Amino acid sequence: MKNGSVIKVGIVGGTGYTGVELLRSLAKHPQVELSVITSRAEEGVKVADLYPSLRGHIDLAFTVPDVKVLGYCDLVFFATPHAVAMNMMVELLAQGVRVVDLSADFRIKDAQLWSDWYSVPHVCPELLADAVYGLPEVNRDKIKSARLVAAPGCYPTAVQLGFMPLLENALVDNASLIANAASGASGAGRQANIDTLFSEVSDSYKAYAAAGHRHLPEIEQGLSLAAGQPVALTFVPHLLPMTRGIHATLYASMKTDMSLDELQRLFEARYQEEPFVDVLPSGSHPQTRSVKASNICRIAVHKPQDRNTVVILSVIDNLVKGASGQAIQNMNIMFGFDESAGIDHIALMP
Amino acid sequence: MKNGSVIKVGIVGGTGYTGVELLRSLAKHPQVELSVITSRAEEGVKVADLYPSLRGHIDLAFTVPDVKVLGYCDLVFFATPHAVAMNMMVELLAQGVRVVDLSADFRIKDAQLWSDWYSVPHVCPELLADAVYGLPEVNRDKIKSARLVAAPGCYPTAVQLGFMPLLENALVDNASLIANAASGASGAGRQANIDTLFSEVSDSYKAYAAAGHRHLPEIEQGLSLAAGQPVALTFVPHLLPMTRGIHATLYASMKTDMSLDELQRLFEARYQEEPFVDVLPSGSHPQTRSVKASNICRIAVHKPQDRNTVVILSVIDNLVKGASGQAIQNMNIMFGFDESAGIDHIALMP
Amino acid sequence: MKNGSVIKVGIVGGTGYTGVELLRSLAKHPQVELSVITSRAEEGVKVADLYPSLRGHIDLAFTVPDVKVLGYCDLVFFATPHAVAMNMMVELLAQGVRVVDLSADFRIKDAQLWSDWYSVPHVCPELLADAVYGLPEVNRDKIKSARLVAAPGCYPTAVQLGFMPLLENALVDNASLIANAASGASGAGRQANIDTLFSEVSDSYKAYAAAGHRHLPEIEQGLSLAAGQPVALTFVPHLLPMTRGIHATLYASMKTDMSLDELQRLFEARYQEEPFVDVLPSGSHPQTRSVKASNICRIAVHKPQDRNTVVILSVIDNLVKGASGQAIQNMNIMFGFDESAGIDHIALMP
Amino acid sequence: MKNGSVIKVGIVGGTGYTGVELLRSLAKHPQVELSVITSRAEEGVKVADLYPSLRGHIDLAFTVPDVKVLGYCDLVFFATPHAVAMNMMVELLAQGVRVVDLSADFRIKDAQLWSDWYSVPHVCPELLADAVYGLPEVNRDKIKSARLVAAPGCYPTAVQLGFMPLLENALVDNASLIANAASGASGAGRQANIDTLFSEVSDSYKAYAAAGHRHLPEIEQGLSLAAGQPVALTFVPHLLPMTRGIHATLYASMKTDMSLDELQRLFEARYQEEPFVDVLPSGSHPQTRSVKASNICRIAVHKPQDRNTVVILSVIDNLVKGASGQAIQNMNIMFGFDESAGIDHIALMP
Repeated sequence: MKNGSVIKVGIVGGTGYTGVELLRSLAKHPQVELSVITSRAEEGVKVADLYPSLRGHIDLAFTVPDVKVLGYCDLVFFATPHAVAMNMMVELLAQGVRVVDLSADFRIKDAQLWSDWYSVPHVCPELLADAVYGLPEVNRDKIKSARLVAAPGCYPTAVQLGFMPLLENALVDNASLIANAASGASGAGRQANIDTLFSEVSDSYKAYAAAGHRHLPEIEQGLSLAAGQPVALTFVPHLLPMTRGIHATLYASMKTDMSLDELQRLFEARYQEEPFVDVLPSGSHPQTRSVKASNICRIAVHKPQDRNTVVILSVIDNLVKGASGQAIQNMNIMFGFDESAGIDHIALMP
Repeated sequence: MKNGSVIKVGIVGGTGYTGVELLRSLAKHPQVELSVITSRAEEGVKVADLYPSLRGHIDLAFTVPDVKVLGYCDLVFFATPHAVAMNMMVELLAQGVRVVDLSADFRIKDAQLWSDWYSVPHVCPELLADAVYGLPEVNRDKIKSARLVAAPGCYPTAVQLGFMPLLENALVDNASLIANAASGASGAGRQANIDTLFSEVSDSYKAYAAAGHRHLPEIEQGLSLAAGQPVALTFVPHLLPMTRGIHATLYASMKTDMSLDELQRLFEARYQEEPFVDVLPSGSHPQTRSVKASNICRIAVHKPQDRNTVVILSVIDNLVKGASGQAIQNMNIMFGFDESAGIDHIALMP
Repeated sequence: MKNGSVIKVGIVGGTGYTGVELLRSLAKHPQVELSVITSRAEEGVKVADLYPSLRGHIDLAFTVPDVKVLGYCDLVFFATPHAVAMNMMVELLAQGVRVVDLSADFRIKDAQLWSDWYSVPHVCPELLADAVYGLPEVNRDKIKSARLVAAPGCYPTAVQLGFMPLLENALVDNASLIANAASGASGAGRQANIDTLFSEVSDSYKAYAAAGHRHLPEIEQGLSLAAGQPVALTFVPHLLPMTRGIHATLYASMKTDMSLDELQRLFEARYQEEPFVDVLPSGSHPQTRSVKASNICRIAVHKPQDRNTVVILSVIDNLVKGASGQAIQNMNIMFGFDESAGIDHIALMP
Repeated sequence: MKNGSVIKVGIVGGTGYTGVELLRSLAKHPQVELSVITSRAEEGVKVADLYPSLRGHIDLAFTVPDVKVLGYCDLVFFATPHAVAMNMMVELLAQGVRVVDLSADFRIKDAQLWSDWYSVPHVCPELLADAVYGLPEVNRDKIKSARLVAAPGCYPTAVQLGFMPLLENALVDNASLIANAASGASGAGRQANIDTLFSEVSDSYKAYAAAGHRHLPEIEQGLSLAAGQPVALTFVPHLLPMTRGIHATLYASMKTDMSLDELQRLFEARYQEEPFVDVLPSGSHPQTRSVKASNICRIAVHKPQDRNTVVILSVIDNLVKGASGQAIQNMNIMFGFDESAGIDHIALMP
């Protein structure tokens, strides 16, 4: 591939919500040619027949995944459930393809820990060390040269970006972190399931997986790296009666006395150069819709009653910065493109 | 009023959501005759013209509030914004009427604290000591003989019922309590307001008043009484894209080592005799819709990863147990009626 | 069964939305003892574990359907998909049980027509003649003595009640009737299905089955009986991003010149004695929420620009008047109970 | 202005939903420099403070409208309520500015008819004849040279595009057209109003203005021009519990016998060259979300039971093709830009 030229891109597992969201952005990306999109279930179906929103923009039809065909791509995205990507990865990488995996397969460095949470052995633990965790705000340099990027989960993106400045500066008690997070229903994917029917989710709200969610070890791994020591996080996710958006409300106990103004400046400094993190003015309450359809993470800092507990509010669109947008951001970094290419959508309001 | 007979009931400020919710239950209450319902703005309008859901059930029209007319009632509910009830209260009580005030005017014992949060001086601080805080699960005996009951706020009901067993038994660190709560939009009332338009609230989620919400001093007052010592609570409310329901996710650090099973038994014992508190089986995640249109508070206890932080989930319908249903529950206790009379609705599912 | 005493009631297929809605009302019905509720898939599960809203109200567990056990009931409701009830009906009726079937099996008198639309042969066409179509506003007398009542579909209830006064009085062109109807997602039932996921239904609206919906022959049958001659209806159903409610917007061309006032009086006279049909004042626009959780059908009459086309607006709660409430209304008529017993809920607002 | 260069654009009344939607697209338009945006109420407020979604994209602050300042623009959009644009128009046009008015002021050619529906006299009826109705699919050539374009209303866009091929070819009975249309709540604008509160709109559905909606004369004017003779339309709008989208279900009686296939080909031929009208395959049911955030109108043709009534389904995003997107499409045509510049958004799904 020459600089400035167009790369060939493939998508494995394009029928879900992260798949269609990849397509919404890639269809307009100036340096991407979409070569192949796979789905066993929808083989032969035109993408635009499944997703009429793409009529006129995408002419491809779904094909059965084939590592040889994918091997002609410069980059392959995996938008699959866990335990799919790892089964094709060795063979695919061997062909020189670079990969951004949106699934969980390569996010956790400890293969045993991964197996404990995902209930299946890891088939290529030898790749874990080289896989780069694709949070550009932390790993931009490693991403540039990565063969295999593990794009972060949706909750982990919102939670890590919110906590990062506090942990990197050793300001809070790392043993009592709390992340109260809420996600729109699209986070559950496009699977036939009674629990995510409209009549089950609408006009209601609940916590789920309070006893332990698969994103917990991923978040703790990232936060521990930032803190330089182990952290303990209580993480309670909730299901919102809406489609897109994650809102994380983060609580931490200050170890040192710092004013709200100082905290605000700390956050602004940390993210000053980041194209996709926006620290709101002090006192703000970011709405999830302020990032809907965009790749932005918006963050606000609070210190209620000027007591000891700092509260961080962090919002993303779970399908964009929490999945497909961030995956494309990684691709842009890997190939030296403008980091915003294809993902500079303005949030949809209202 | 004779025992067993029907009481005359008045409602001041019946055009809002707590007003129509009072009517839904009172219309079927076997021992209530609705005598008067007031609204300056809707004077002369039939209640059922404003709320077609009540056609065939309520024949009254709104009248201008008049303390003399209200004086013929056995009980008057105030379903008004703050600072209305306190201006009529002395005169009304003087006529021998008993009152359940759904507004904030008599919830906080410290008049100065109240004024600080509600930005207006209290006009009858001398009544605060005798006003009974109408949380039946705490004050049932005092409610029986109360002249003036201050019905709790919606968030305070969900949060206090969730924390109570922990604080009463001195199990947790009272200085670092966290209440992450979320409410449906009906909590904002039926006021013309851009911020609560459908197009502003729908398909979005946000925190609000993170720097300080008026329900904070009310909650801290109740929790401090339960704990027998001052508590400090970080309270962050959120606005849900739905109409009815409050979900409180409560976090506390255990001071003593207790298993999840022991915690579960503690909660079950505390609420065993309560008709309107339901402790769910261990591991449950109560949905707000499981209490929609009902007067029930459902609670679940969690201890994630068996670490030190206990998580309590508590849900109510903000307009029922969080307002009008609880007000009627207070009335039932005050007049010796069956505590469930008129408010034994089964939650609407789906 | 003695007059005034309690009847034993069974429910076949109680896990769906019409099942739980039957339970919400039957749990409080003064003359009903719920004896048995069946589900193959949930055998042994307590009803209140599947539907926490029923905790404290229903103690039964689901059992496998068994005609002998059901034979001890005075009345059995079928809340099943089509083609279930008809396979148990002969044996069940032989035991002297009376039945209200909420499914489609006995609604259409012409077995061949039924088979054409439901793609399966009818197994007991000999019962069709005696089955009573359970629209009380049309068939109240026949329902009283019926052994088998076929409760109407949701769309057919809203559409027929709206058109009935016009057709019974031969006022409109029967060959060009139009019913533009819209339903909440609960009408699709509690089935795992991608098309009714929250993320598919929310924040969107669409027509479906415009080429032909199974309720069309049922509606045309009822309207033809009312008109005394065949009618032709164009029926286009739509899916609303909400859970409960049907709204039918009906269009007909007047054959005779009648003023809006005359039409209004005609509708009021037709439904004057009906406990569950409410004709709104002229110029009204009934909201579906004005009947949410209630058994009421609210109707408004319009004659735009005083032209030739009359527009009728008709709303019901699809799960109540459109299914379970109407089924109980039928039961009440069959057993001589107060027709409103157990189903006099006031609509939930907001 | 030179070809290929950038034009200066102003927006009068930029605080509403059509204003922010204009900004979402104009911010990325390659040939537009946004010069001024006005609001009396928000004078001095930065646009991005009112709409955080625009942070980083729009640096302007609102100013008080001033015709002299607006006079420096090449094009001014009016995103105002009716009766604002007409009061500034003569003076503005005199300065050589071209205008696209998104309000109703210049849509109806008959000033008296306009006054009857909008309850205010028209102040510059002399401009009505020259104002071009901005439906590009009908008036593209006139738009190119127009000084003043009256952008169509949201309902009129969906309804006219759906009916146009039938009327232009004299295929249906023009005296009995029916448009059953439904809109998301954003169509009501960003006004403080009880009727459009979340708690009023959510989980409910209703018709409104059945006796007569202001868009009726606009639609009838357009359809009559297409038909070459007066048409009579029964138009019933409905309010959907969602934010964006219009769905029109159109009914017409065929005068000549035409098969569904022939109708399909007719529609495909009519819109073959149109960049923003997409005729779906026969049998389709367009969802409003298939056009959410995009400028596309998707249309499907049905002929139920092969009877005499043809049914057309037509969907748009009311804020894009129904307002701001179409306004920009007009601007692109007026200035010879690529017709899709700035408005080639792919619909957001899910």
